[in-house]
Amino acid sequence: MTTPSDWNELAAQLCVDSIRASTAAASGHPTSSMSAAHLLAVLYSDHLRLDVGDPQAPGNDHFILSKGHASPLVYSVLKAIGAIDDAQLLSFRKFGSPVQGHPVPLPEIPWVDVATGSLGQGMPIAFGEALAMKLDGSPARVWVLMGDSEFVEGSIWEAMANASFHGVSNLIGILDMNRLGQRGPTMLQWDGDRYADRARAFGWHAIEIDGHDVDEIDRAYREAEGHTDAPTLIVARTVKGHGVSFLADKEGWHGKALSEEQAEKAIAELGGERNVTITPPKPESFIGPSTTARPEIRLPVYDDKVATRKAFGDALAALAADQRVVALDGEVGNSTHTEEFQKVAPDRFIEMYIGEQGMLGAAVGLQALGKVPFAATFGAFLSRAYDFIRMAAVSRANLRLNGSHAGVSIGEDGPSQMALEDLAMMRAVHGSTVLYPADGNSTAKLTGAMAELDGISYLRSTRESTPKLYDATEEFPVGGSKTHRAGADDRVTLVGAGITLIESLKAAEVLASEGIATRVIDAYSVKPIDAGTLRRAASETELLVVVEDHWIQGGLGDAVLAALASGGAELSTRVLKIGVTEMPGSGSPEELRDWAGISAAKIADRVRSTLR
Amino acid sequence: MTTPSDWNELAAQLCVDSIRASTAAASGHPTSSMSAAHLLAVLYSDHLRLDVGDPQAPGNDHFILSKGHASPLVYSVLKAIGAIDDAQLLSFRKFGSPVQGHPVPLPEIPWVDVATGSLGQGMPIAFGEALAMKLDGSPARVWVLMGDSEFVEGSIWEAMANASFHGVSNLIGILDMNRLGQRGPTMLQWDGDRYADRARAFGWHAIEIDGHDVDEIDRAYREAEGHTDAPTLIVARTVKGHGVSFLADKEGWHGKALSEEQAEKAIAELGGERNVTITPPKPESFIGPSTTARPEIRLPVYDDKVATRKAFGDALAALAADQRVVALDGEVGNSTHTEEFQKVAPDRFIEMYIGEQGMLGAAVGLQALGKVPFAATFGAFLSRAYDFIRMAAVSRANLRLNGSHAGVSIGEDGPSQMALEDLAMMRAVHGSTVLYPADGNSTAKLTGAMAELDGISYLRSTRESTPKLYDATEEFPVGGSKTHRAGADDRVTLVGAGITLIESLKAAEVLASEGIATRVIDAYSVKPIDAGTLRRAASETELLVVVEDHWIQGGLGDAVLAALASGGAELSTRVLKIGVTEMPGSGSPEELRDWAGISAAKIADRVRSTLR
Repeated sequence: MTTPSDWNELAAQLCVDSIRASTAAASGHPTSSMSAAHLLAVLYSDHLRLDVGDPQAPGNDHFILSKGHASPLVYSVLKAIGAIDDAQLLSFRKFGSPVQGHPVPLPEIPWVDVATGSLGQGMPIAFGEALAMKLDGSPARVWVLMGDSEFVEGSIWEAMANASFHGVSNLIGILDMNRLGQRGPTMLQWDGDRYADRARAFGWHAIEIDGHDVDEIDRAYREAEGHTDAPTLIVARTVKGHGVSFLADKEGWHGKALSEEQAEKAIAELGGERNVTITPPKPESFIGPSTTARPEIRLPVYDDKVATRKAFGDALAALAADQRVVALDGEVGNSTHTEEFQKVAPDRFIEMYIGEQGMLGAAVGLQALGKVPFAATFGAFLSRAYDFIRMAAVSRANLRLNGSHAGVSIGEDGPSQMALEDLAMMRAVHGSTVLYPADGNSTAKLTGAMAELDGISYLRSTRESTPKLYDATEEFPVGGSKTHRAGADDRVTLVGAGITLIESLKAAEVLASEGIATRVIDAYSVKPIDAGTLRRAASETELLVVVEDHWIQGGLGDAVLAALASGGAELSTRVLKIGVTEMPGSGSPEELRDWAGISAAKIADRVRSTLR
Repeated sequence: MTTPSDWNELAAQLCVDSIRASTAAASGHPTSSMSAAHLLAVLYSDHLRLDVGDPQAPGNDHFILSKGHASPLVYSVLKAIGAIDDAQLLSFRKFGSPVQGHPVPLPEIPWVDVATGSLGQGMPIAFGEALAMKLDGSPARVWVLMGDSEFVEGSIWEAMANASFHGVSNLIGILDMNRLGQRGPTMLQWDGDRYADRARAFGWHAIEIDGHDVDEIDRAYREAEGHTDAPTLIVARTVKGHGVSFLADKEGWHGKALSEEQAEKAIAELGGERNVTITPPKPESFIGPSTTARPEIRLPVYDDKVATRKAFGDALAALAADQRVVALDGEVGNSTHTEEFQKVAPDRFIEMYIGEQGMLGAAVGLQALGKVPFAATFGAFLSRAYDFIRMAAVSRANLRLNGSHAGVSIGEDGPSQMALEDLAMMRAVHGSTVLYPADGNSTAKLTGAMAELDGISYLRSTRESTPKLYDATEEFPVGGSKTHRAGADDRVTLVGAGITLIESLKAAEVLASEGIATRVIDAYSVKPIDAGTLRRAASETELLVVVEDHWIQGGLGDAVLAALASGGAELSTRVLKIGVTEMPGSGSPEELRDWAGISAAKIADRVRSTLR
C-alpha cells in the first residue's frame, strides 16, 4: 500500500521531471503539468490498472490526457512506470523524437492511445473507449484528465450528454481546475461548484476535491470506481505551477519553459531530483473478443437503380457480420441508411444524436480499442467535426466516414444541407482515402473495402437513386477508375464521379450523336486518384472536362489537375473544370444541376463552346 | 390587447399555412412547425418588437429560427405580419424562390437575419446579436427558437456559457421540446427539468411551460423580459404535429409533407384556412451608432522583421478607430495578437474562451447587426468551426478571420497545433477571400483591406518573425501578387506565400548563383489568385514550382494549377507542387521545413533534379 508520503514524493518527481524536460527543450508547459502531478501520482500508483509491459492487454485501464499541452507530466509518468527512460524524457520536443510537444501515439510509445492538443477532444474519445469496453464486457475503466479552459468546448458537453445517456459508468473524468488559462483566468476560475453542477445536470456523478491532497484524491478515485450508476467527474481544485513559489498561481507562465537557472531554483524548492519508480496495479485478467476472426461478408447486389446512400447502408449491414464493426450516426440514420446496420446489429449501433464532434471523438476512441467504426451523417455536417478528423489523422486512427446528401443534387432542402466542400475537406486530411461511387454495386464494393483500409476513409453518397452501371462481379480497387465509351477517335474526355458521372454519360451520348466522340472516366477514387488513366486520356483527347457537384475549389477538378501535373510532368492538354460556383437555393435536383451547369445538357454545351 | 382566443386562432393559421406551404412544395417539415405555432403566435403578436416595414430599424427585436427546418412556420408568420404574401408563401422550396427550404437572408426577405438549417447554430448567432445590442446600448432583445434535438450540439453550450458570462440578459431562448427528432425520440424526450437544470447550471434563468398554453407562454415571455440578471431559457413542452390527430406526437412524420388529401383533413381538423393578420409591437425608438463614419486608419509600418501574426494584431488595433470593428478570440489573444486590439478597445474585444464554434457564431450575429467582426485563433483550430464558416457563407455574412500558427513552421508544439488544411478549407468557402502575406507591411495592408471586404475573408499568419520585404507605401490589392527577381532569361518560377515566399527567395538566390535564373512570385492573395501573372510566368519559364507550408492537397498549389487551367486554357508548362506530404512531429521550424522539403535548400534541390 502506498503511503501519502510516497504519493507526494512521486508527485514532486513528476513536477521536477516536467521542468527538466521542458527546460531541456526550451519550450513546453511545465506549470500546466505541475497542477496535475498529485492527481496522476495517485492514479498511476494505486488506481490505473495497467500492464506496462503489455499496453495492448485487453484488461488494461486506459488514460487520456485531454489537456495535451501537459505532455511533460505524462512523459514523466511514463518514466516513473519504467515505460521510457530519462534520455527519452529529455528528448522532449526534439526533432525525430516520439516524445513530441503534444502526445502522439507512435510505435515507440504505445502507452499513448490518441493524439491530443486540440482541446476538448479527450472526453469524447474517452467516451468511445469506455463504450468499446462496455461492448466487450470488459472490467476496465477509462480515465481522462482535462483542463479547465477546455470545458468551454462544446464537444465536452456532447460527450458528457452521450456518456450518461449511454450508461458508461466506467468513464472517470478528472478536471484539473487550476484557474489559469493561456492568457489569464478561466471563465469559471475556481468555481468548482459550478463545474460540478453542470456535470450533474448532464447526468454525471460529481466529486469536488483539493487536487493536491493525496488522501482526498485517493478517496475520490475509490468513490468513482465504486459508482456504477453513472460516469464520474472529479473536480479537482489545483494550483498551476504548484510547489514552486515563483510559479504557483502566477499569470504569465502558461506554455513557458523555465530557464536553466529558474529550473534549478524550482527543482530545489521541490526537493531535488528523485528516482522513484512505481508499478501500477495489475489489470484484471480479461480476454477480449477475437480481433482476427474474419467472417465472410456477403455484400449486397443491385440489379436496378438504387441510391448510393442506401447501398452504403446495405453494405454496412453486411459488414455487421464482422463483430469488430460498429456504426455511429448523428441522428440521421434513416437518411444515411446506417439504420440498415442498426436493424441487424442493434447492440453495435451507437446513436450519437445531433452532435457530430462527439460522434467523431467516440469513433476515434472505439478504434483505439480495436473496433472498426463507421460514422455517418450528412456530408455537410461532417464539416462540424473537421478538427476531430484532422486530429484523428495525427492519432493514426483508422476511421471510416460516410457523408450523404452530396451537392446541389439534394434539391429542395437548400444549401444548408448540401455537402459542397466535403471533398476539399477530406482530401486535405493526411493519408485519407476519398471515394465517390456512382451506382449501387460500386458503392457496396467500396464500402466493403473501407473496412480493411488503414487511415481515414470517406465515402460520399448521393441522395437520389442512380441507375445500375456495373455488374456485381466488377472490382473497384482504391486508386482505380473505370473508363466508359473509350475509342480511338475520342476528342473529349469527361471525368465525373457519383452523380456527375451519370450526367457525363448522358452528355457523352449526346455529344457522340453530334460527331464528338467522348470518353467518360468514373473517378470513383478521388484520393488516391488514377493518374495513369487520366494522363492517358489527356494525351489522347483534345479536351479533358472534370464535372463535379461540389464547389469548384478543392474537389475532383483540383485532384485531376494535381494528378496530371504530378512530378512536374509536362502539361500539354486543356482541362476544363465544371463545378458549383454560385450559392444555390432550393429547387429540384434536375433544376439545380442545370442551374449549376453540371447537367448533361449544360456539360454538352460547355464542351461544344470550349472546342469551338 | 390580444386575447387567448386571438393567439390560438393565429397559431391555428400558422399550422394551416405550414401545411399548405409544405404540401404545395411536396416536401418540408410541417410537424416541426406545428409544435412551435403557439410559441410564435404569442411572440409576434405581443412580444417581439418589430417594425415590419423597416426590418433594419436599430430598435427592432430580432428573431432567429435555430431549428431551420421549421421554416414553413417562419414563412407563415411573415405572411401573418404582412411581410410576404400568400403566393410567396406557396413558392416555398421552388426553384428561384427566396422562400427556401431552410431560411436564408436574401434581399427579398430582410426579416431573416441569418441562414439556419445546420442545427445548434442559432443560439451562438443570437448571442452575437445580443452582444451587438449590448455594445450599442440598445433596448432591443434577441429571441431564438430552438429544437430539442439540437440541444446535444456542443455549440449551444459554448454559447450558453458565454452568454451568461458576458451578461447578455437581452437574450431569450425558447426550447420547442417536442420530444421527437428526425428518427425517433430525442435523448431527453419530455424531461424538461433536465433541460432547465442544464440551463441553470450554465448561468441561465429557466422557465418551464406548456408550449401550447398561450397564457403560460405569455407569462413566460413577460418573466423573461423582466429578468435582467441573466439570459432566459424557456423550456416549452410541445407536441410535434400538434392539433392534428394523425400527426400529433406520432413517429415517422419528421420532414414529411402531407399529401393533398392528408392536408385537407388536417386543415379541417385545425378549423380551416384563416386570414388573420397582426402587427407586432412597435420597437422602442432607438438611434443606433453611425455606420457610415469612416475614421482615418493609420496602419502600422515596419522597418524591420516582425511576425505577421504580430502585424495582424497591430493592424487590427489600428482598425479599432472604426467603432464598427469588434474582435473575438478563442483565448489565444497573446498568440494571435488580437491582444493588441484589446489594449486599445477593451470594450469591443470579446473573449470567447476555448470555444471556436461559439466564437464564429457570435461573429455572424455581430455582423448581422452591423458590426465588423474579426475573429482569430490558431488556423488549426478554425477547423473546429468549419460548419459555422460554411453556413456563414450561406448567410451572406461579412466575416474576417485570422488563423495564426500556419504550417510545420510553428516547430516544437507539433502537428496538433499546425494549420495544414486551412487554405483548402477556406478556399472551399463560397465567395471567400484567402490571404497569406509574407511580411509585416503586406500583412498590415491586407488586414486593413479586410475591414472593407464583403464575404468571408481569411488571413493566414505565421508564428515566426519574417524579414521586411516591402515598403509601407507598397499596395497589395486583393487578387494581386508581387513578382521578385524577374528577368528575360528566367528558367524557373517559384511561387510562394507567407513563410514559403521567404524560403523561395533564398532558394532563388542560390539557384541564380548557379546560373539558373529564377523568378519568385509572392502569391499573397491565394483566392482570388493572380492568374495573369502566373500564366505569364508559366509561359516565360520552363518550370513553375509552387511551395507551400500546407498539405499538398487543396492549398496554394491546387489554386495555381486551377488558375493556369481556367477556362480550359491550353496548359503547356511544367508545374511542380511542393508541400507537406508526411505527418510532421516536433522540431525546430528550420528542421521541420527541411524535413518537409520546403526549406530553401530543399526547394533548390527539387528545382535542380526536376530541370535535369
